Amino acid sequence: MLTNDQLSRWDQDHFFHPSTALGAHARGEAPGMIIKTAEGCHITDRNGNRMLDAFAGLYCVNIGYGRQEVAEAIAAQARELAYYHSYVGNGTEASITLAKMVTDRAPDGMNRVYFGQGGSDANETNIKLVWYYNNILGRPEKKKIISRWRGYHGSGLMSGSLTGLSLFHKKFDLPLDKVLHSTAPYFFQRENVAQTEQEFTAQCAADLEEMIAREGADTIAAFIAEPVIGTGGIVPPPEGYWEAIGAILKKHDILLIADEVITGFGRLGTMFGSPFYGMDPDIITIAKGLTSAYAPLSGSVVHDRVFEVLARGTDENGPLGHGWTYSAHPIGAAAGVANLKLLDSLGLVDNAADVGPYLTAQMRAALGEHPHLGEIRGVGMLTALELVAKPGTREGFDPAAKVVPQIAAAMARRGVIARAMPQADIVGFSPPLCLTRAEADTIVGVTAEAVAEVLG
Amino acid sequence: MLTNDQLSRWDQDHFFHPSTALGAHARGEAPGMIIKTAEGCHITDRNGNRMLDAFAGLYCVNIGYGRQEVAEAIAAQARELAYYHSYVGNGTEASITLAKMVTDRAPDGMNRVYFGQGGSDANETNIKLVWYYNNILGRPEKKKIISRWRGYHGSGLMSGSLTGLSLFHKKFDLPLDKVLHSTAPYFFQRENVAQTEQEFTAQCAADLEEMIAREGADTIAAFIAEPVIGTGGIVPPPEGYWEAIGAILKKHDILLIADEVITGFGRLGTMFGSPFYGMDPDIITIAKGLTSAYAPLSGSVVHDRVFEVLARGTDENGPLGHGWTYSAHPIGAAAGVANLKLLDSLGLVDNAADVGPYLTAQMRAALGEHPHLGEIRGVGMLTALELVAKPGTREGFDPAAKVVPQIAAAMARRGVIARAMPQADIVGFSPPLCLTRAEADTIVGVTAEAVAEVLG
Repeated sequence: MLTNDQLSRWDQDHFFHPSTALGAHARGEAPGMIIKTAEGCHITDRNGNRMLDAFAGLYCVNIGYGRQEVAEAIAAQARELAYYHSYVGNGTEASITLAKMVTDRAPDGMNRVYFGQGGSDANETNIKLVWYYNNILGRPEKKKIISRWRGYHGSGLMSGSLTGLSLFHKKFDLPLDKVLHSTAPYFFQRENVAQTEQEFTAQCAADLEEMIAREGADTIAAFIAEPVIGTGGIVPPPEGYWEAIGAILKKHDILLIADEVITGFGRLGTMFGSPFYGMDPDIITIAKGLTSAYAPLSGSVVHDRVFEVLARGTDENGPLGHGWTYSAHPIGAAAGVANLKLLDSLGLVDNAADVGPYLTAQMRAALGEHPHLGEIRGVGMLTALELVAKPGTREGFDPAAKVVPQIAAAMARRGVIARAMPQADIVGFSPPLCLTRAEADTIVGVTAEAVAEVLG
Repeated sequence: MLTNDQLSRWDQDHFFHPSTALGAHARGEAPGMIIKTAEGCHITDRNGNRMLDAFAGLYCVNIGYGRQEVAEAIAAQARELAYYHSYVGNGTEASITLAKMVTDRAPDGMNRVYFGQGGSDANETNIKLVWYYNNILGRPEKKKIISRWRGYHGSGLMSGSLTGLSLFHKKFDLPLDKVLHSTAPYFFQRENVAQTEQEFTAQCAADLEEMIAREGADTIAAFIAEPVIGTGGIVPPPEGYWEAIGAILKKHDILLIADEVITGFGRLGTMFGSPFYGMDPDIITIAKGLTSAYAPLSGSVVHDRVFEVLARGTDENGPLGHGWTYSAHPIGAAAGVANLKLLDSLGLVDNAADVGPYLTAQMRAALGEHPHLGEIRGVGMLTALELVAKPGTREGFDPAAKVVPQIAAAMARRGVIARAMPQADIVGFSPPLCLTRAEADTIVGVTAEAVAEVLG
């Protein structure tokens, strides 16, 4: 058996990790965990440390870890047929069944699923489909994509361009052309603090209208947005936001891509986030909760009104020149089918609707009066604790002081994993949807202790 | 149990397939296969049809189908830990071990692996790394990427731009800026038929030199190429090609990205294709053979001379703003470890070096004198049969006549899957590396019958 020391050596010398300080990791100054096993909301590393994962991996292990039903579905698929491609109409029982199950759960009219591997490649597919769509409709100029500051849509060249966080642009020459960023619907950090929530919503809408007028509606293909901002700070929209934005998009014939990589399959206490907020998307991006991360799988769920144009396009131009070798991979499809069945049979969407708000409420009860508290907010099984440097202001900490990373580290020492959100002073929580009230209490207790340790 | 009719209905109504005629599929005019199980070189559909897959899925099932050792490795990983992320230095025994195994097999100096899910996203990572690299070196203008006509590097926005086949550009507004395509090293289809192979190599080199002079070497970051052209027609390079091209790239300080998605892990009868052709890459793209497609996994193998610059970059700028949720997914990593062990223990690289050339030789013996033969070529376990419309010329068939698709269909009726290559009159073969001589004989016999049926 390999020792931890041997693995750590190989790790430093050969493993190029994502989102990591490469030099520090290679020098052994920033070791990560080597995870061995996991169950429910807890992960255990090779040193025997057991931790409550209040971020569900990366917002993705919706059903919780260690579900043997999904493991057995993966095992059975691997034994019978680990792979065949899905090009030129080929499929498997699992991939076809999953397409049916996804569309049964998606909003009305969303009847087709293209499967990819992860959220970034799904959004790349979406942009390709939107461009193709407008070419088929004879609108070659209608190609720009509007995203939002603090939106997160991946970290590829296009998907990272759509992401509205400079961390993902810096030194990568992003964003690419054709991507515009509109106002972040982030009420707490609004520019004009005098605005009410309604006034701020009106401001977001007016900013979008102005951008469309400036660029020309005939140059804008789509608006892409998460129902609730995720990596940008876990920010539910201000009141009336989606109603106002949706009306503008309809008026200008701009497609709406709802990026439900985080919100899809139960995170908000509803199967999808779009209907929860009254959105009427043309395409929905899905990933994470689709398989609860047990195997890589993503998807683009396409509305009939878009698919009809795409189908006409291939009638006129031949097969669509788009495909990944691992589109609709049988292992991912089998994991997805078993995962969605468990999500239903265990009642996890309802549990998210119950325990999520409980977590947010208890966090308010524990930390609502802390002098460095900015705001505690949440929806479903998503909670954010935003801190401020000076009581009574919205002023942030000096980034060099790494205040929130220190809080996350103090929590980790106490056995709870939360996330120091990027480019903000926010501790983020996105636990598995099977979180119990007792586990929520543990998260809140540890958070309060860690905040006290770092900020008093 | 679901009936085939029920599945076909759901398939038509809900499954958006890659590389498919969407309208025809939805109307039931272009049904695909519903694959049930597979073993060795054979797949079996739900109707009980058993076929010899002479394309290994999409060049990817290197070890053959149905290997229970890999299935059990996947099953064990799924039971113990289906997922944890690899951000900020986290890993698992499987992902770290696989990083070590890949770098042990890669050319000298290629010591770091970033793991993705598929070849398209790996090439996207590569372009991001190359741009970052030149920004850290203070060369913000050195960003263009030279690919080659008929190269294949994926079908995303950037990876599809790198791909030099118009099928993947049409109606998608590709290629993007910053991508240039140089001469396809395709001797049979050279413009000037009077050239010898050596003269054609000199022409390819001169064309590249001219492109670099015209654009300015200080604007060109990288040259990306497959050691052997794959989807563009299965075309080994002309004599002396890589020696000539490599010298030009070194002279102008242009990085070389070797896209070994097809050639990596044994396809050419060698572990990697780069050393086989004397290439000295800075980054190698890997996917397909890394897991033999048993689970989605790709990688970017990075040379020390590039990694050092990237590491300095993160020392100066903080963690790299690049990552996929499913980077180094545990299921893919476990599949990769088991797959590479089998590749060794079954001696499949040597088998490819033996049976691949046998397949090509027998194809020549059977069809070398056919009046419509253009060329039979191959290397390792890759064989191409290129046909011509008029004997003694290089003239192609009318695409509307679908001659090669008819041959592929005639082969399928006889139980052998080969591929009608896009934008060419080529039947392509890329069987599992475990192909036997008897199976090679079957492929050749069926090909000859199908050619006779369609062309006489």
